[in-house]
Amino acid sequence: MSEVEKYITSIPDFPEPGIIFRDITTVVLSPEGLKLAVDEMGDLLEGTDFDVFAGLESRGFIFGTALAYKMGKGIILIRKKGKLPRETVSQSYDLEYGKAEIEVHKDDVKPGDRVVLVDDLIATGGTLEASIKLIESLGAKVVKVVCLIELAGLKGRQRLGDIEVGSVLVYDGK
Amino acid sequence: MSEVEKYITSIPDFPEPGIIFRDITTVVLSPEGLKLAVDEMGDLLEGTDFDVFAGLESRGFIFGTALAYKMGKGIILIRKKGKLPRETVSQSYDLEYGKAEIEVHKDDVKPGDRVVLVDDLIATGGTLEASIKLIESLGAKVVKVVCLIELAGLKGRQRLGDIEVGSVLVYDGK
Repeated sequence: MSEVEKYITSIPDFPEPGIIFRDITTVVLSPEGLKLAVDEMGDLLEGTDFDVFAGLESRGFIFGTALAYKMGKGIILIRKKGKLPRETVSQSYDLEYGKAEIEVHKDDVKPGDRVVLVDDLIATGGTLEASIKLIESLGAKVVKVVCLIELAGLKGRQRLGDIEVGSVLVYDGK
Repeated sequence: MSEVEKYITSIPDFPEPGIIFRDITTVVLSPEGLKLAVDEMGDLLEGTDFDVFAGLESRGFIFGTALAYKMGKGIILIRKKGKLPRETVSQSYDLEYGKAEIEVHKDDVKPGDRVVLVDDLIATGGTLEASIKLIESLGAKVVKVVCLIELAGLKGRQRLGDIEVGSVLVYDGK
């Protein structure tokens, strides 16, 4: 397992019994933790041919922008509904209770763009799946998903079709 | 005015007549825009003696983490209420309609820490003022506030007492 693991705070039974919450605030609070996390997420992209990152509000912004800065790329911001000022397209998805909706500026995504999607964590993959639909509805292609943490027990990876998924830390459980 | 200005999209009469919305999504979408913004925010910290950044959900995360990565520092995440898993302290503040509350993990802020607070924009300064109270309630000191954009007409700077404020782009209006 990557050295980043020692900067994660694992909180048992949060938010409910049986779930171990993986807290990344202690990763980014540490200069070494932040550097390792961003650099190792970058390493996952070695050999990947892409044009631009896309980051998911709000924890995808944490690693996405640092990664974009480091790699000399730009980043498309995917936000919760109602926060973007120009013309948007949106995509809704199911939560455990109810629905949520994300959106992106229509002209921030260029047809033919090869996009790397960044988030802190891949759990069930629902938000990532919705983000892929959103980006691809505008004619771009998501070529890879990069996360700091993967909760393999939730099988999020299987929801993303044949898109390559890279994660720095993989936990077996939920 | 900084070169970053040409990457800002200014949207007149949004969200209401008389307001010009300054959209930063086109700054971060451009590799050059993102690099200029982060580097110039970093230049504002030349000579500032500090230990750690603090970033405000969610647009403060965009520039805060990139800046922390670049400068070899860590970042304290200040989030909206209910999103942090460990013991928090919180601070409420007034919005135009109603109230909002932000919080931080109690043990992410160390007494004596010299903190630089990062956000994308300083408008009325209400959220920044609440963040300063929050950080200082835990015995740390905010030594500087750094923003990409300042709307000088809203006089946010005056609300932050004698804390130094640095902004890359200053617009006269609201």
